[in-house]
Amino acid sequence: MKIAVLPGDGIGPEVVREALKVLEVVEKKTGKTFEKVFGHIGGDAIDKFGEPLPEETKKICLEADAIFLGSVGGPKWDDLPPEKRPEIGGLLALRKMLNLYANIRPIKVYRSLVHVSPLKEKVIGSGVDLVTVRELSYGVYYGQPRGLDEEKGFDTMIYDRKTVERIARTAFEIAKNRRKKVTSVDKANVLYSSMLWRKVVNEVAREYPDVELTHMYVDNAAMQLILKPSQFDVILTTNMFGDILSDESAALPGSLGLLPSASFGDKNLYEPAGGSAPDIAGKNIANPIAQILSLAMMLEHSFGMVEEARKIERAVELVIEEGYRTRDIAEDPEKAVSTSQMGDLICKKL
Amino acid sequence: MKIAVLPGDGIGPEVVREALKVLEVVEKKTGKTFEKVFGHIGGDAIDKFGEPLPEETKKICLEADAIFLGSVGGPKWDDLPPEKRPEIGGLLALRKMLNLYANIRPIKVYRSLVHVSPLKEKVIGSGVDLVTVRELSYGVYYGQPRGLDEEKGFDTMIYDRKTVERIARTAFEIAKNRRKKVTSVDKANVLYSSMLWRKVVNEVAREYPDVELTHMYVDNAAMQLILKPSQFDVILTTNMFGDILSDESAALPGSLGLLPSASFGDKNLYEPAGGSAPDIAGKNIANPIAQILSLAMMLEHSFGMVEEARKIERAVELVIEEGYRTRDIAEDPEKAVSTSQMGDLICKKL
Ligand SMILES: CC(C)[C@H](C(=O)O)[C@@H](O)C(=O)O
Ligand SMILES: CC(C)[C@H](C(=O)O)[C@@H](O)C(=O)O
Repeated sequence: MKIAVLPGDGIGPEVVREALKVLEVVEKKTGKTFEKVFGHIGGDAIDKFGEPLPEETKKICLEADAIFLGSVGGPKWDDLPPEKRPEIGGLLALRKMLNLYANIRPIKVYRSLVHVSPLKEKVIGSGVDLVTVRELSYGVYYGQPRGLDEEKGFDTMIYDRKTVERIARTAFEIAKNRRKKVTSVDKANVLYSSMLWRKVVNEVAREYPDVELTHMYVDNAAMQLILKPSQFDVILTTNMFGDILSDESAALPGSLGLLPSASFGDKNLYEPAGGSAPDIAGKNIANPIAQILSLAMMLEHSFGMVEEARKIERAVELVIEEGYRTRDIAEDPEKAVSTSQMGDLICKKL
Repeated sequence: MKIAVLPGDGIGPEVVREALKVLEVVEKKTGKTFEKVFGHIGGDAIDKFGEPLPEETKKICLEADAIFLGSVGGPKWDDLPPEKRPEIGGLLALRKMLNLYANIRPIKVYRSLVHVSPLKEKVIGSGVDLVTVRELSYGVYYGQPRGLDEEKGFDTMIYDRKTVERIARTAFEIAKNRRKKVTSVDKANVLYSSMLWRKVVNEVAREYPDVELTHMYVDNAAMQLILKPSQFDVILTTNMFGDILSDESAALPGSLGLLPSASFGDKNLYEPAGGSAPDIAGKNIANPIAQILSLAMMLEHSFGMVEEARKIERAVELVIEEGYRTRDIAEDPEKAVSTSQMGDLICKKL
């Protein structure tokens, strides 16, 4: 069992470190061991190798069973040409190489953290528990042609039948094991790519008669996520809309620092939903929970260790219930624990 | 002073009716009169003339000093070919014809309606008072080529220098008369059209040294609008992102029924931010306030009647403060007033 570990930029290295501590506990308890091979990506790789996704990193990823990523990007590299930047040249190129087609983000508002949520308790209602299923391999992120000169810049927003079929199936499969509701989000009243999207999603839906499908325009979805988030179970959407709506959903629990993600492809990749947060990097104050829950997703989806995944999730919940908070979720920042303390607490609870 | 009145679909006709009552009061009080010429648009026009933007409607609009629109669209017309639908063939074609390039949506959380907002009082903080300035004439809504067949659908997301310059100036001019902060929202870490956008906005910003400019990625903006909406003054963004973020912002006060909008072009167009809401159409329960405040924006921006605009806004506030509520903002739906009652109350207060 081989894991490619790519800490990346910003808070990446410090939160990955905590997650690996948790993995160590799992190894000790189960007797199973993982080979961890470290690689460079993003700004970190640019600084060391002059490129955001060096050959060595590609090799490490291709030889691993799963990829465990921190985060990429930061103002330091924002003036490089597009294809050389951490995001396009690093993360998006890696997604492409691994054929990552689905980004899965489960979002839960913890009962004990309702005070952290920006939403009123009555809006959270019976609870928010949704999953965004974002198409990750196509759409305006990768469509060709695209170009930039002094006078204009353009991109191509595109979907084809097989890409939509694949991601729709992923969403319906996930919904089958949940509350059996898929909300497909598009802008089919304006965009031709969305018209195809809606049509194909409708076709795939016929294979899943026990899952309820509704369509929602993206502007309305952006609104409904705030007005009545509990209506959602699985949100199925495009690469661009998924980027926006999954971050918007991520605001509901009150901190990005809580949210893991998994991306499915030839190999799966696991990374927190939040960004590299350069402003708080290196200060030992970032919340490692998102990275630790991403580890749990990895154990479950790439290594079939469902029980260990549940145990990690439970440990996180218990530590939160006991009142331990990193700064992002603390009511009183004075009492906040550090990144490494939070990691230790979760390890101990395990 | 000639107004083209296009009630359109869904709740459009009933809320426009109330706004015209208010206009009548203004006419009586000021002695000024407006010529109102009614036209058909959207599904309403499809049903009567077989097309969503008939010649007659075009003529009415071109001869008027301002256009006062209700809303367009509904499930009844969703299966027509794209260019024949109320949205693309009606509203978007009208925007194009009038060269509408800026959609302005002021969003305020009324103190007396804090209970309606989905956000916690502490998140609303000192208050939410922002304006979204959405580019309305270009981007993926109009970029060519675009197409749809059985296998794929695609659109072109494009911006050019002069379009970005124009909308950026609009935003900076508005900010000058407000808190002097512009947040430009793009996805310049991925999209080439956004890279141009950011570059040109930076250039225009140099003409406004007293206005502070920050850039924000759209995913982060979608999150920040929930986590800390009070940080925003003027949000400047593209057609697509503006569609999403302005509706998201519109959720903050708790009801779309409160929010007006103005679109600037060869002639200005005024319409509520909300949609046609087919589910509640014809029931005399829709909130006419958005339409009435759109009227106020029209009086101010197209007819220089600033004082009358302020008076209407004040009347709306007073009626709300006195506790009158349509169903969308009522704590107790049993006590809600109807569309026409709300219109009458505002007229009386004037
Ligand atoms: C960093 C950026 C390119 C990336 C994206 O837009 O996909 C990020 O926002 C994400 O959601 O993973
Ligand atoms: C009806 C639709 C075409 C329109 C848009 O997307 O522009 C609407 O959502 C709006 O925001 O005015």
